[in-house]
Amino acid sequence: MSGGFDFSAWAEARRARVEAALEAWVPADAAAGLGEAMRYAVLDGGKRLRPLLVLASAEALGANPEDDAALRAACAVELIHAYSLVHDDMPCMDNDVLRRGKPTVHVRYGEAGALLAGDALQALAFELLTPEASPGTPTQTPPEAVTPPRLAHAPATQARLCGLLARAAGHAGMAGGQAIDLASVGRTLDAATLRDMHRLKTGALLTASVLLGAAATGLASVTPAWQALSAFGEAVGLAFQIVDDVLDVTADAATLGKTAGKDAAANKPTFVTLLGLEGARAEAAQLHRHALDALSELQRACPQAQLSALAALADAMVRREY
Amino acid sequence: MSGGFDFSAWAEARRARVEAALEAWVPADAAAGLGEAMRYAVLDGGKRLRPLLVLASAEALGANPEDDAALRAACAVELIHAYSLVHDDMPCMDNDVLRRGKPTVHVRYGEAGALLAGDALQALAFELLTPEASPGTPTQTPPEAVTPPRLAHAPATQARLCGLLARAAGHAGMAGGQAIDLASVGRTLDAATLRDMHRLKTGALLTASVLLGAAATGLASVTPAWQALSAFGEAVGLAFQIVDDVLDVTADAATLGKTAGKDAAANKPTFVTLLGLEGARAEAAQLHRHALDALSELQRACPQAQLSALAALADAMVRREY
Repeated sequence: MSGGFDFSAWAEARRARVEAALEAWVPADAAAGLGEAMRYAVLDGGKRLRPLLVLASAEALGANPEDDAALRAACAVELIHAYSLVHDDMPCMDNDVLRRGKPTVHVRYGEAGALLAGDALQALAFELLTPEASPGTPTQTPPEAVTPPRLAHAPATQARLCGLLARAAGHAGMAGGQAIDLASVGRTLDAATLRDMHRLKTGALLTASVLLGAAATGLASVTPAWQALSAFGEAVGLAFQIVDDVLDVTADAATLGKTAGKDAAANKPTFVTLLGLEGARAEAAQLHRHALDALSELQRACPQAQLSALAALADAMVRREY
Repeated sequence: MSGGFDFSAWAEARRARVEAALEAWVPADAAAGLGEAMRYAVLDGGKRLRPLLVLASAEALGANPEDDAALRAACAVELIHAYSLVHDDMPCMDNDVLRRGKPTVHVRYGEAGALLAGDALQALAFELLTPEASPGTPTQTPPEAVTPPRLAHAPATQARLCGLLARAAGHAGMAGGQAIDLASVGRTLDAATLRDMHRLKTGALLTASVLLGAAATGLASVTPAWQALSAFGEAVGLAFQIVDDVLDVTADAATLGKTAGKDAAANKPTFVTLLGLEGARAEAAQLHRHALDALSELQRACPQAQLSALAALADAMVRREY
């Protein structure tokens, strides 16, 4: 499916756009050091996996690589991810001091600074999704009734992106998964409960990334293509977490850029403790196949779709070494 | 301006609607106790000042008291307010143990539980503003092109409400003001800096409340009526904070429902320490007059506007005793 496609070049170009956009959109001048802490949490770090999923999905469905709505969605989902890491690392949660090879935000800016930076990053995600043009627009005479606006400024797209992202981040998504995670320390979970927890904690935002890209192109959510992308996102999302658990056991801190073995040390249930190392790897491989099956579904529903980047991302998420 | 208007009855009826809506919309069944902590933080407490401002503004401009967009905006802004209190009370911030006469959320649910509940409440605010109908709607054929939808489901209104609320909550609004507040402990601020801090910390969300109500009715933001409502919100927002500082000195914990005198104890600058008790009261009175002047502007711009509830709210915000 990805024959002749240069994923490294594709990803490098998209990462550069995302970095430049985050650099421009995460404010340097926010009050009293808040902007500095926000930028420390977001810039120059991370694989930008979620933004790449957004952009791959949007481009698969025909979006221009410069599409503003997709770029805003890509950055917004990364801000949600970044805020969750900032809060997760705090002493009352995982109490982690190292992230992406750097001191965590609360180590650098204090706990209150980290709390506020995370809160402001979540708000900023929704600011990015609703460019300034919109708040000034009266609803009785939507601009699309006059001339078709650029997609980024279409209020319907903005609303849909906000709704998808809020649900993926909230109580029925990431925050809900974190609450289950928090309650599970020191307890025995079965594999089904562990899967449910990760479907929320990391899966919801990864799935949302794929769907945000599709929503940016205007794909309706009642279509077979939307369902296929949703299945793809769920499969790669869970596979990603299983590989995370495998790497927590097999990789070292220098490769991971964070403290290794911390889940085992915290007595947290993982896919490795439940399924064994080989069992976990087998489940990741099966989910990888499910993801590729979903892309085949998408191709049937949308023959013109260009799936190379999505397929390459699925490969990279399962075969990664950090 | 409020002759013959029964503010108590008006406010009681709106509070009942807001309570019922929050009861329905803040999930009881969110995972692992998260919903319980969210509901503890939001339900059965507070004056619901921000929701009342939203509803008063919407109704002033002709919205039906049952308007769904206005009710969603009223609840969303209260969720943002509630999350900010949960995080503010945490040990790394104000370390407060009493709020509205009850143990604070971190005392009841632990610090991690409070952190997550606050995070999920912020996301829920944006979920409320984007009802499920919207994410399923393709943008190429917005429903308003076919039949006029109920206002709550108009994507343009949803996007505008999200944009206003996100900006009021984020780095250039509430979170930014909290960062200035955090950095100001133990320092000497002049009155201008203190005003700027409170314009962000509490004023941005109070002003946004007024504007969210107007946006729910579709009022365009380039109009004199919008400008008048913005000036009204800024005046009552700052007056409210000054009265807060006065009450922190003159009222006791039983009346306030929270620890009294805590700002002075924390060596935080207040309007009372800067202007004296009488100076602070005089400034609040002047801002009250500015607010009423703004309502007169609104009446000139919008002769059909019904301003009794907004005027009564301005009175209540300045003359309150808790």
